Amino acid sequence: MNEYEVFELGDVVLQGGATLRAAKLAYKTFGSLNEDKSNAIVYPTWYSGRHWENEWLIGEGMALDPNEYFIIIPNMLGNGLSSSPSNTPPPYDKARFPNITVYDNVAVQHQLVTEQFGIEKLALVTGWSMGAGQTYQWAVSYPEMVERVLPFCGSAKTSLHNIVFLEGVKAALTADASWKEGWYEEQPTKGLRAMARVYAGWGFSQAFYWDEVYREMGYSSLEDFLVGFWEGFFLDDRDANNLLTMLWTWQNGDISKTPGFDGDYEKALASIQAKAIVMPAEKDLYFPPEDEEYAVERMPNAELRVIPGVWGHFAGGGLNPDDTKFIDDALKELLAN
Amino acid sequence: MNEYEVFELGDVVLQGGATLRAAKLAYKTFGSLNEDKSNAIVYPTWYSGRHWENEWLIGEGMALDPNEYFIIIPNMLGNGLSSSPSNTPPPYDKARFPNITVYDNVAVQHQLVTEQFGIEKLALVTGWSMGAGQTYQWAVSYPEMVERVLPFCGSAKTSLHNIVFLEGVKAALTADASWKEGWYEEQPTKGLRAMARVYAGWGFSQAFYWDEVYREMGYSSLEDFLVGFWEGFFLDDRDANNLLTMLWTWQNGDISKTPGFDGDYEKALASIQAKAIVMPAEKDLYFPPEDEEYAVERMPNAELRVIPGVWGHFAGGGLNPDDTKFIDDALKELLAN
Repeated sequence: MNEYEVFELGDVVLQGGATLRAAKLAYKTFGSLNEDKSNAIVYPTWYSGRHWENEWLIGEGMALDPNEYFIIIPNMLGNGLSSSPSNTPPPYDKARFPNITVYDNVAVQHQLVTEQFGIEKLALVTGWSMGAGQTYQWAVSYPEMVERVLPFCGSAKTSLHNIVFLEGVKAALTADASWKEGWYEEQPTKGLRAMARVYAGWGFSQAFYWDEVYREMGYSSLEDFLVGFWEGFFLDDRDANNLLTMLWTWQNGDISKTPGFDGDYEKALASIQAKAIVMPAEKDLYFPPEDEEYAVERMPNAELRVIPGVWGHFAGGGLNPDDTKFIDDALKELLAN
Repeated sequence: MNEYEVFELGDVVLQGGATLRAAKLAYKTFGSLNEDKSNAIVYPTWYSGRHWENEWLIGEGMALDPNEYFIIIPNMLGNGLSSSPSNTPPPYDKARFPNITVYDNVAVQHQLVTEQFGIEKLALVTGWSMGAGQTYQWAVSYPEMVERVLPFCGSAKTSLHNIVFLEGVKAALTADASWKEGWYEEQPTKGLRAMARVYAGWGFSQAFYWDEVYREMGYSSLEDFLVGFWEGFFLDDRDANNLLTMLWTWQNGDISKTPGFDGDYEKALASIQAKAIVMPAEKDLYFPPEDEEYAVERMPNAELRVIPGVWGHFAGGGLNPDDTKFIDDALKELLAN
């Protein structure tokens, strides 16, 4: 499951001016590219996610059926598999790893898709959370190339509140002195656990906790959930500098920073040609439906479809079969048109 | 403005079994007690608040008019003025300060009200946030004594999600090694600042940030607001151990832990005799209106009245004139009946 390919990007000049030398894009594919190369789907990863944590949305009989589509999961820069603070040799390692934008991520994914596979059209780009951000960015960076998009539980521009939520996450991690401004030899686990506890309140809705839905997930108490799910999540081979790199990417996500839009968010949204179903979750605390409603109203060919229920942001995390079916149904509908 | 009285409680045996020796309850009063002692109002403080931070709701022409009512603001145990980790002599100082429940807080307030002033009926108990929690507790601990309650932006029982939010706040503060498990000589300011940043995303709503309402408050940018308002808030003579004491009080707030209710929340709610207007804020992220709707449905004489707008939890913080008027109007209505 963890086998994957690596695309050698060479030296990548980033949007911020730095050069990511000998950059690597780790990816995994499912299914086969058809003869006219019309069945390709790009499905980027989310904050801290690795390609295998995307696979729940792929399967026979599902919208993302490998018998029908050629599905590419590119790992986000900074996630520990693609070029990251944790795997880049000095002098660009650890705290010196450059800032990466969502635009940069999509630019290198575009290189992979076109140079490695010779694909000219994408049937679909889809993704959860920061994967949704990359989905929007694909539609803005390459409007002629992307036929359909289905971003779920994510946004085209990181809202100010979302930036503040992430400030709290970052502050908790970096309050641990053993982080050493990024120059640690061992993971600052106290900070990672603190970050996990901050995240816990945001990832699921108030009602999720009220209903104690974590019991259905196999956790015997609230504390068991905080340790077992949340602390375990951020200790699972995740790296503090990698998490901070991706956090910067997230905080600075904004399609209007794409060259040509000069910060005009409405103009960037209006430039999207792809047919879109935009799917925020009803009780997502950091990507609230209101923000996506705003976006959809400014996109020429988009529908807002809110994922109902109490799972909040994790409605898009593949943990709840009802939510997964709701997303999968929308993907099927979109791909059929 | 900071002058206040101190009521000597003697040795207080707490709900958890510890004894708080030579305990002190700091309080401030406004107005005069009338002859039949029928015009007393208790208005407890909130998480980290001091009596002077309650005064915005008191004034001539307002519901809490000192010309008409005798208003007592008791400072919560742990807030740095009443007995707290920061002002209790060894061996009960700092990390050894005992756990205090909301029930304990109200019990000592009851001592003040009855022993110091000989008051037998309270016209009203009201408060914001943890002050609302104490308000509910008054109505359950002393149902015959409390005629009216108006808890705003708070709950009778701390919800599981609220507990998780506070876990994040606590984890951020205690991730700072200079906290030293409570045995610091100087405040762990990195941890206090981290806690402030975590709190920032919770205290105001998503829409508050989207609309950049902090600009109306005199902050020139998001970062200016995070430093000036939030970090400043937790550095303003607040003490880490005090904050952790009150945080424990908050996390363990639950009227059903009152003797006689044996954890039966519904029964505790049903026992409230006071006429109540319960006022959650529409977009409060840790005291969502749904939770208070649940409470009001189980209270015999209560009305739910949601504070509209984007200010979230801080709708009850006295910073927004519209919200203050909305609360004040409800207080006037309740007191008139």
